[in-house]
Amino acid sequence: MLPLPAHDLLLSWLHTLVEATANLAFALSGLLAGMRKRLDMVGVCVVMGLAAFGGGTLRDVLLDRRPFFWVAHPGWLWILIALGVGAILFVRSSHFELTERAIQWPDALGLGLFTASGTQLALAQDLPAIVAVLMGVFTATFGGILRDVVCNDIPTALRDRRPYAVCAFVGGWMYVLADHLAWTPGMALLLAAATATGTRVVALWRGYELPAGYTAGSRD
Amino acid sequence: MLPLPAHDLLLSWLHTLVEATANLAFALSGLLAGMRKRLDMVGVCVVMGLAAFGGGTLRDVLLDRRPFFWVAHPGWLWILIALGVGAILFVRSSHFELTERAIQWPDALGLGLFTASGTQLALAQDLPAIVAVLMGVFTATFGGILRDVVCNDIPTALRDRRPYAVCAFVGGWMYVLADHLAWTPGMALLLAAATATGTRVVALWRGYELPAGYTAGSRD
Amino acid sequence: MLPLPAHDLLLSWLHTLVEATANLAFALSGLLAGMRKRLDMVGVCVVMGLAAFGGGTLRDVLLDRRPFFWVAHPGWLWILIALGVGAILFVRSSHFELTERAIQWPDALGLGLFTASGTQLALAQDLPAIVAVLMGVFTATFGGILRDVVCNDIPTALRDRRPYAVCAFVGGWMYVLADHLAWTPGMALLLAAATATGTRVVALWRGYELPAGYTAGSRD
Repeated sequence: MLPLPAHDLLLSWLHTLVEATANLAFALSGLLAGMRKRLDMVGVCVVMGLAAFGGGTLRDVLLDRRPFFWVAHPGWLWILIALGVGAILFVRSSHFELTERAIQWPDALGLGLFTASGTQLALAQDLPAIVAVLMGVFTATFGGILRDVVCNDIPTALRDRRPYAVCAFVGGWMYVLADHLAWTPGMALLLAAATATGTRVVALWRGYELPAGYTAGSRD
Repeated sequence: MLPLPAHDLLLSWLHTLVEATANLAFALSGLLAGMRKRLDMVGVCVVMGLAAFGGGTLRDVLLDRRPFFWVAHPGWLWILIALGVGAILFVRSSHFELTERAIQWPDALGLGLFTASGTQLALAQDLPAIVAVLMGVFTATFGGILRDVVCNDIPTALRDRRPYAVCAFVGGWMYVLADHLAWTPGMALLLAAATATGTRVVALWRGYELPAGYTAGSRD
Repeated sequence: MLPLPAHDLLLSWLHTLVEATANLAFALSGLLAGMRKRLDMVGVCVVMGLAAFGGGTLRDVLLDRRPFFWVAHPGWLWILIALGVGAILFVRSSHFELTERAIQWPDALGLGLFTASGTQLALAQDLPAIVAVLMGVFTATFGGILRDVVCNDIPTALRDRRPYAVCAFVGGWMYVLADHLAWTPGMALLLAAATATGTRVVALWRGYELPAGYTAGSRD
């Protein structure tokens, strides 16, 4: 069954809302990282932008999609700049101790939303399921990886053992499953996002850890 | 008013000149960075290439433009390789102490030229003004960011507090303004480049500094 | 003379074989790097993927080619994930001391194969010879560079003085030469790969070193 135009409109509006929320959460993680590294005002804004838009932009370059989210919705660029400049000018350090932990929750929401939208866009191009799921994972994780690479750290997502990309991976497969069962895109989106966000929240709450690799030549 | 063919030719020629000059300045910054990190001959050439062509190539990937500058003008690749190999084989360390400071001036020129050409190409695709300005900023700064990331440093442009991307940002808006006032592309290019280069030179000369972010958990 | 369909089929099959072998060799180098940095299971898989597919994907983005190797052959993604997860779960550190040196040989094979296929694909788009050769070099080296950047090291290929990109460069020119002499694509592929792999093996065996750059401000 083809989705009705009304569905299309709703879906498109939902997509915008989803990406906006996820962008904001990731931008905040970039803000924190940039402040912690004592970057200047430009550096903080750049790291916010990489964290917020890096994942979606990589996905769109790989899928050859245009326009990018930040080209279609340039207002978000202003919001990011205002946030970054405002944070540098007005915020005191004590506040950030607080937000550091608080940011885990919007970040988990962003993880779910980006996973779901990335998987959906890739499936819409008839890509193989594993590729579509990985596009969801890239969308959700690549912003954070870019943020950490530019800050000269080994990306947190690759080394802290706390499930993150794995949650996106599981969420992406939920989308594929729902799509296979012919659920509506909106429902599939919801299932995938809830799964990725939910597993992430549970993993954080219960302190689950992934196994790590090491060799005789490992650091320490 | 449509530009006459003669204008087009002149503009195209001007573009090539502008990109060539900017490329050379950025290549020299890559040469210095690579030598300082004691990279080998290949490493120095790669870092020069990233610094020179990284910004323009990212812009073209984002704008979906082909061919890249270095594909259309492959002679520049030879010039870069010759410069890198020559520097490794013939140059003594004492010379570089000298060039380190000297490079700020061609670099400021490159900043202006890349800003102007990046903004112009984005506006030609009818992108929103803020996006076009940021494309100018990317063109001007991303080569240096890639250079520093590959050299395993936090990019200078993001942390040294000296205005750099900010000058590109201001220059880009001058292009948008000139375009809005229906100036010829050549005049708009000149205004934007002069603004970005000029503010950079003044900022260096007067020692202006941007505010920086820090939190209780900052380094030192 | 146009290649016969049978030639085309053979060539296409040869390409797949070549990319598969090279991918596997580079994936193993990523596995080692990830284990040595003590990344978690996700990190090891990501670094393997970057090392294996990074070079070919960058080449395809630059050449505007789709689908990527890992989209057309998604089975390889499963192989990588299985390898990474298996290595983390079952492998003891002592084994890796062994493979560290052993990996140089498949890696040299991968170098040759990626060089040849990258140069061939670029020439097929009528790009200038130097650009085609550099596309071969990118294909062969960029995966390793991404691997090292994400692991927060200065890329080995840029600083260890052992010829690597240089071998790819020489191999790429052999392809251009063979193409100029109107050899069949299969023979040109063989010559280029044998040259790049052969010079790499000789360089490792004889301990050849490239000159390196340094200045008064160099590290140590």
